[in-house]
Amino acid sequence: MTAGPEFDADAFARDLFDALAQATGDGVGITRECYAEGENTALKILADAAEAEGLVVTADPLANLIVRLPDDDGMGTAHYIGSHADSVPQGGNFDGAAGIIAGLICLIRIRRSGRKLTSPVRLIMLRGEESAFYGRANIGSRALFGLIDPNDLQARSRGTGPMLQDAMARLGIDVDGLRERRHFFPTERALSYLELHIEQGPVMVARDLPAAVVSGIRGNLRHRRVVCRGEAGHSGAIPRWLRHDPVFAFADLVARLDEHWRTLLERGVDLVVTCGIVETDAADHAISRIPGSLSFSFEVRSQSQETLDDFYAVFREECRHVAEQRRVSFEFDTLVLAEPARMDPLVIGTLEAAAQRLDIPFEIIPSGAGHDAAVFANAGIPSGMVFVRNRNGSHNPHEAMEIVDFLKGVDILHAAVTAGN
Amino acid sequence: MTAGPEFDADAFARDLFDALAQATGDGVGITRECYAEGENTALKILADAAEAEGLVVTADPLANLIVRLPDDDGMGTAHYIGSHADSVPQGGNFDGAAGIIAGLICLIRIRRSGRKLTSPVRLIMLRGEESAFYGRANIGSRALFGLIDPNDLQARSRGTGPMLQDAMARLGIDVDGLRERRHFFPTERALSYLELHIEQGPVMVARDLPAAVVSGIRGNLRHRRVVCRGEAGHSGAIPRWLRHDPVFAFADLVARLDEHWRTLLERGVDLVVTCGIVETDAADHAISRIPGSLSFSFEVRSQSQETLDDFYAVFREECRHVAEQRRVSFEFDTLVLAEPARMDPLVIGTLEAAAQRLDIPFEIIPSGAGHDAAVFANAGIPSGMVFVRNRNGSHNPHEAMEIVDFLKGVDILHAAVTAGN
Repeated sequence: MTAGPEFDADAFARDLFDALAQATGDGVGITRECYAEGENTALKILADAAEAEGLVVTADPLANLIVRLPDDDGMGTAHYIGSHADSVPQGGNFDGAAGIIAGLICLIRIRRSGRKLTSPVRLIMLRGEESAFYGRANIGSRALFGLIDPNDLQARSRGTGPMLQDAMARLGIDVDGLRERRHFFPTERALSYLELHIEQGPVMVARDLPAAVVSGIRGNLRHRRVVCRGEAGHSGAIPRWLRHDPVFAFADLVARLDEHWRTLLERGVDLVVTCGIVETDAADHAISRIPGSLSFSFEVRSQSQETLDDFYAVFREECRHVAEQRRVSFEFDTLVLAEPARMDPLVIGTLEAAAQRLDIPFEIIPSGAGHDAAVFANAGIPSGMVFVRNRNGSHNPHEAMEIVDFLKGVDILHAAVTAGN
Repeated sequence: MTAGPEFDADAFARDLFDALAQATGDGVGITRECYAEGENTALKILADAAEAEGLVVTADPLANLIVRLPDDDGMGTAHYIGSHADSVPQGGNFDGAAGIIAGLICLIRIRRSGRKLTSPVRLIMLRGEESAFYGRANIGSRALFGLIDPNDLQARSRGTGPMLQDAMARLGIDVDGLRERRHFFPTERALSYLELHIEQGPVMVARDLPAAVVSGIRGNLRHRRVVCRGEAGHSGAIPRWLRHDPVFAFADLVARLDEHWRTLLERGVDLVVTCGIVETDAADHAISRIPGSLSFSFEVRSQSQETLDDFYAVFREECRHVAEQRRVSFEFDTLVLAEPARMDPLVIGTLEAAAQRLDIPFEIIPSGAGHDAAVFANAGIPSGMVFVRNRNGSHNPHEAMEIVDFLKGVDILHAAVTAGN
């Protein structure tokens, strides 16, 4: 195929998103199971589109695909654009795929422009970002850096399907190398890692912005289950002063945390707090009974590890106060940490400057969800992300990104990787 | 049997409680199903004990048993002592039975004393007070006043057992009369109704009191299910200002209600507030998801209808405030009222005076649970109750009333029905 100035990114993007939806639709949404048929199909479509535009596609030892410019031998330092080809079951068409198509458009533009870059730009089409099938997120990117726990290789798809290691072996992946925690990515040769993604929250819709630059990826501290134990009793026969009511204790706790949260936000701290699961015990709760216990999940997210630690300390302290004042006790399961990742200040600056130059309105916002960019950033590679406005969140068939917004995000990405290059 | 001064109430009570426990124990606790074997067995044991002491036992058209002094023809006005012979499944030995045995001891004492009363004292041994089998409480007492909804006669024991009307018919009960809402109790000939019961709450243990006089029986206003609807979303990607979080909204609501409650208690208002059931939707809640909704039960109890109405209005107003401030909505199922009942001030005064005369420490406390005395009170009969200290609540095998406390309660009851009589 010959390069030409008539490249229509809008049509290219629409055709490719349509082809993906057609090939990996499940009747309800989109399913691209990682290390399996759906993801393979998506990667094939994307690789074919790359090759049709004269780009070079190769696989790494983990069956991720690397897309290069024809004049890049793949050996020297480079800027990387990356995203993932898999999806959750009955998910949407844009989570992951938008980042890959954005990378393809950048490479095609560079190729068609005939421009010679000081440092080439490469696209890495990753596998296994979603945790939906094997219970672990970022398998494809963590595998690059020797970060896969060998036990996780024995996880089964959705609990009862094939083992991850077998699904990987069928694709020719170096499973022994994974077990030995070998590194499969040339960290020292990556000048930067950039990822475009749909926003999974409502901020950009609310702020009426087509694109955003990501400041960092929130990590989190979680308890899957905290039990507030009180004392069960007759709802009519126990006066307030003799109650050990876990429902009122929980309400008190959450009200206190909400007040701390509000205050910290006013001080500019990055923080979200969620109790996604709240339950009295269905085995013995009743309208006319003060319940004996209430269990809840607790999650705090922030881009700052310090904030996570500080707010967690506040949480435990308020639990102590509430326990004392309301005569209940709190029991905590294992605390689980997912590390936050800061995007690189210079990369952020480059993306900001690009958006400004292109006159695209944007803000700098945090990412609440995890992304492969966090893995690259924590591996020491200067990383950055561009968000594109999207309605209805992600991981559902109702993801709604406008192509016009997408192309603005792509413009920022393209401008950033070619700036001064 | 001849009357004698050597009557040992302590031994009489212990023997009778033991006989009941023996005959109606179920291996775990006590089961005396109403209008069935267990209740019949208990009534037979109690009637036999009455007759052995020279008292006269007859059945009313509802198969409740009336115990009279031999010189009472049952036709004139009288003071009534009453309680129920049934229990919940795997319940305790004292809930209900203590009141009947108390009445028996009073009558036996009067009989043995040879004293002639101006107005006789009668004991009514009621059936069907507990709602555990047919889903409706106070069947035996409400039937006396034509208060049974004919539909309830078709309820089945524990949902799948015999129909109430058939169980009643087998005992020769006038089911047609019930359907016609006939009155079976000579309301105009009842000077008072007195009932002794174990306390089902922890107040008397906490206050170290063997007995208490009941001020009234709390009624309640209830919603079985209130749904607080917000908007589901990614826990990491939605900042506080864009959340519609039903968990934080519920916590805010309960914290506000708790504050009103505390204030009202300081002002001497009788009130308890309970959310016995609290649940996010198990079908789609998750640690990393702001839940779309949270459902909860709401119950407020008070001896005062005005307080019930006022607090309910406060509840709805706070729901409106929280809905507005936290961008959620509340949906309410049918509001159900159980009327409160005030004990008669003169009867309360008589019981108080009796306790003071006997030098038994007591307080005046409300009953949080329902009792047949509420039905008699609301039928216009001056009613009163004596509570006896009891650990571990009721409706469970761990009810723990000391006989020494019980006899103090009986002394108060006896002194009250014989005072100036």
